[in-house]
Amino acid sequence: MIKVYGDIKSGNCYKIALLFSHLHIEHDWREVLVVKGQSRTQEFLALNPVGQIPVVVSGEDVLTQSNAILNYYANGTALMPQDPLDVFRVQEWQFFEQYSHEPTIAVRRFIQTFLGLPAERQAEYDQREAPGYRALEVMEKRLAEHEFLVGDSYSVADISLYAYTHVADEGGFDLSRFTGIRGWLQRVTQQPGHIPM
Amino acid sequence: MIKVYGDIKSGNCYKIALLFSHLHIEHDWREVLVVKGQSRTQEFLALNPVGQIPVVVSGEDVLTQSNAILNYYANGTALMPQDPLDVFRVQEWQFFEQYSHEPTIAVRRFIQTFLGLPAERQAEYDQREAPGYRALEVMEKRLAEHEFLVGDSYSVADISLYAYTHVADEGGFDLSRFTGIRGWLQRVTQQPGHIPM
Repeated sequence: MIKVYGDIKSGNCYKIALLFSHLHIEHDWREVLVVKGQSRTQEFLALNPVGQIPVVVSGEDVLTQSNAILNYYANGTALMPQDPLDVFRVQEWQFFEQYSHEPTIAVRRFIQTFLGLPAERQAEYDQREAPGYRALEVMEKRLAEHEFLVGDSYSVADISLYAYTHVADEGGFDLSRFTGIRGWLQRVTQQPGHIPM
Repeated sequence: MIKVYGDIKSGNCYKIALLFSHLHIEHDWREVLVVKGQSRTQEFLALNPVGQIPVVVSGEDVLTQSNAILNYYANGTALMPQDPLDVFRVQEWQFFEQYSHEPTIAVRRFIQTFLGLPAERQAEYDQREAPGYRALEVMEKRLAEHEFLVGDSYSVADISLYAYTHVADEGGFDLSRFTGIRGWLQRVTQQPGHIPM
């Protein structure tokens, strides 16, 4: 059976749990807690030298990078568009997520909610506020006028961005003025097979 | 004709120039210089609200995110593997690039070579050295035993990682002990249609 090494409170890991729930993919979840240093042990680094979760192990294949894993398993299902330009848009949102969204919104949440906002991380926490709001503005621009991020139906792009956006408040972000995002968050929870973090 | 907005000295933009050279895709290059603030003008932000280069404009379609653009144009060519697991590996390397490699190796290069290592960026420059070498170690682990990053032939994964790795010295990284990477850099330059940055 497929094994998933991860922490369900990590958005990157939750993406996999959410996809596998939608697609009814059975798997065995192995807890790896970053805050306890479990992603930096010699044993874990032998599995994934990058030292990140999630890691999916399927037979002899070891798969890392949450968004790449989503695309691999979603391929050929209703969660991956068929039109090549829409397939491109999925990846465009996912690279935006890993470069501009996760390092601001997820990292502030980690500092605030997982580490308890220690004094030595305060400057970093503050610096990541404005770029985090800029990332939310980019999403809002799309979601103010469309139901989903790509095309007109729910896809893995929505899973990728939902993971940390729906807990942005845990990183000190106030979503009240982002009405497009808030409507979309609601629509995501209504998809068949949705599970909470 | 396809328009590319970018700065050829930016690795993310060079990726597109390199791919288009391999595939003989004619295009019109429009220079946008980050150091002159040209990616933050109102006009440019109307094109790409994320404020990043490169941007490819093809007819009415505006495409952003360098790696997503590579995959879109490489699809169906010899530069994109056919096996689904290899397609996954391409994206796995590309997400690694955007999360762990670019923010360390490219950002240090930008601070050192484009900004002249100003005092107020020194701490950030220093902090990004160790994670940059960790990213290089991850590449070395693969390239010490394989000719290319995915499968056994040159692919867009190699273009994605070559872009900043081959100028890592401009960010203060010493590649002399990375013999696998150095052999691979050489092999990349030998591909038909290769152009220098």
